[in-house]
Amino acid sequence: MTSTLNTLDTPAAVIELPRMMRNIARMQDRMDALGVAFRPHVKTTKCAAVVQAQRDAGARGITVSTLKEAEQFFAGGVVDILYAVGIAPHRLPHALELRRRGCDLTIITDSVASAREIVAFGRAHDEAFPVLVEVDTDGHRSGLHPEGDELLQVAMVLHEGGMRLKGVMTHAGSSYELNTPDALRAMAEQERAGCVMAAERLRAAGLPCPVVSVGSTPTALSATHLEGVTEVRAGVYVFFDLVMHNVGVCAMDDIALSVVTTVIGHQPEKGWVIVDAGWMAMSRDRGTSRQQRDFQYGQVCGLDGAPLAGYLMVGANQEHGIVAREDGIDGDIVARFPIGSRLRILPNHACATGAQFEKYEALSADGDTQAWPRFHGW
Amino acid sequence: MTSTLNTLDTPAAVIELPRMMRNIARMQDRMDALGVAFRPHVKTTKCAAVVQAQRDAGARGITVSTLKEAEQFFAGGVVDILYAVGIAPHRLPHALELRRRGCDLTIITDSVASAREIVAFGRAHDEAFPVLVEVDTDGHRSGLHPEGDELLQVAMVLHEGGMRLKGVMTHAGSSYELNTPDALRAMAEQERAGCVMAAERLRAAGLPCPVVSVGSTPTALSATHLEGVTEVRAGVYVFFDLVMHNVGVCAMDDIALSVVTTVIGHQPEKGWVIVDAGWMAMSRDRGTSRQQRDFQYGQVCGLDGAPLAGYLMVGANQEHGIVAREDGIDGDIVARFPIGSRLRILPNHACATGAQFEKYEALSADGDTQAWPRFHGW
Repeated sequence: MTSTLNTLDTPAAVIELPRMMRNIARMQDRMDALGVAFRPHVKTTKCAAVVQAQRDAGARGITVSTLKEAEQFFAGGVVDILYAVGIAPHRLPHALELRRRGCDLTIITDSVASAREIVAFGRAHDEAFPVLVEVDTDGHRSGLHPEGDELLQVAMVLHEGGMRLKGVMTHAGSSYELNTPDALRAMAEQERAGCVMAAERLRAAGLPCPVVSVGSTPTALSATHLEGVTEVRAGVYVFFDLVMHNVGVCAMDDIALSVVTTVIGHQPEKGWVIVDAGWMAMSRDRGTSRQQRDFQYGQVCGLDGAPLAGYLMVGANQEHGIVAREDGIDGDIVARFPIGSRLRILPNHACATGAQFEKYEALSADGDTQAWPRFHGW
Repeated sequence: MTSTLNTLDTPAAVIELPRMMRNIARMQDRMDALGVAFRPHVKTTKCAAVVQAQRDAGARGITVSTLKEAEQFFAGGVVDILYAVGIAPHRLPHALELRRRGCDLTIITDSVASAREIVAFGRAHDEAFPVLVEVDTDGHRSGLHPEGDELLQVAMVLHEGGMRLKGVMTHAGSSYELNTPDALRAMAEQERAGCVMAAERLRAAGLPCPVVSVGSTPTALSATHLEGVTEVRAGVYVFFDLVMHNVGVCAMDDIALSVVTTVIGHQPEKGWVIVDAGWMAMSRDRGTSRQQRDFQYGQVCGLDGAPLAGYLMVGANQEHGIVAREDGIDGDIVARFPIGSRLRILPNHACATGAQFEKYEALSADGDTQAWPRFHGW
């Protein structure tokens, strides 16, 4: 059954397909031009139809953040899967089971302790797990220093323990904190150079390192060259969002995800419109609050998707959003946005907003929408 | 199948049942003593087993924030349901359908425009919708001024239009911003007095007003009397959380919801532990950031539930959390929290954290856990 933006129940998470397809083509073309494989991170969407579009465009394999994602996409026919979160020892039996069923699952680690767990479990079950060693190129979260001793120790433990040491991977997540092309290019180069250095140190020590995997949406879209890198990973580029707009890697009209909401009330003295999308729909993500342009809970657009300058979602309760002008009271708010009328809200963070919904509504250029299920949980 | 905190997959949302039962009894006993009916807000949990415990303790009817909640709980045998979000006109057919199937669904409105939509639809379908008029007693969101003209206009439109005007309701959500017993008592009295004044104005105008419904967890637990009120609504009290702890209506060891997580890595130089609960598990809710005590993404506890003083979740990516001492670097962090060990995190906001999960794990006093499904979406 098809619907339109006027007949959908609200709140609804709408994907503008022409924008999504443009975003997918932009990234894949870039990766092709830079001579690297592209492995999209599917944690952003957890949606088979979106991932199919990424694969159709040329993606090779996928990146996941949970074994549930691996299960779901393997069931859907994706075999080459990188689980890009350091593996907890209690998840090794599940990883083994996936591999025994034919999933080419690669795992990652960044400690000798965890590498030893992988080796002990792999040897006990006669499984040579493919493993990437996680490298820290920007200090924002996990990984080993590319120039440190532990990098080689971890690689050695895996290799000598009989695991399939595939190489190194990194994610320069601190690129989300930048907002100039120069800083982004520099971070992309830092990410590339650090990961390639780690790879070269492994090779110099006589260890195998066929894979050099890097990526984040901002660095993938800013790198000028990727010498020594074999693959790039990125996720949020498929939809983009207000945080990425502030980082400077997309325009407002590249943002492919929005939430359709219905006006349910007004507080005219305050210039407020009450809508039926609260934080349960938008998520509590306030990523733009730390950026140069704070969009509160989201940029308000008309149902045609055109931003209404100055109107933001300024507050959110569970199922209520408050829409208002950011620069003062709009005395005409009741007539402008009557009860029952509809708005669209661009989100701070597409990964967080999408995760609030059981399905996307994929909006074609002809105005029809189609439900695209997404999954949830672990 | 039963599990324990040591065998559950992580992240998991755990309910400590003895705490939950104590919280339920505390609220119900208070409402019994104050001589009012209690109608729990089920948006916090969306979980049949939790709501059954609330009903077993004496709750009369439930409050919902979506028609999906109404559908699910009506299917589970709850008939008396208040949908406490101003109804969007496009949802009236769904509300009608629920009523025709035997659900005693009450809806709310706070505008003449919306009241007219209800009347027009109700008359067209020969349905006298039961309706409460929403009153604004604290300026935080929706509702009509108790002393204003529109209150009477809306009530009159409904009554003269043949709808079943049931009375008035309010929610003093700004009570979440308070943190002293005096301020909370004053807000509870403001909520009560405003709603009772609205009811008296309706009655003085010859309009029916059998129901006077108020409530929020902080005001429900702070009111000294509820003269003129017929029922109270509250939701988060069933679990409590760090925001409620800061408001001052619960102790740390009343918090019944926590997230169990596994240690997956370290950054020893920074004193960081990396765990497998990120914002996808905790939610992005940072409710305590505006309070006198900021718990960042949550208070870290041992697996026994005892808070580890000074350890907070200080950062969160999608599936990674960063745990650290808030007052400096713990040089012993690797040995203290080894790879594979487990922690529990108390959340800022139980409604938001619970919503990230497909099920709760209900932890009995004997240490066994049982999966309690919850639903999601609209």
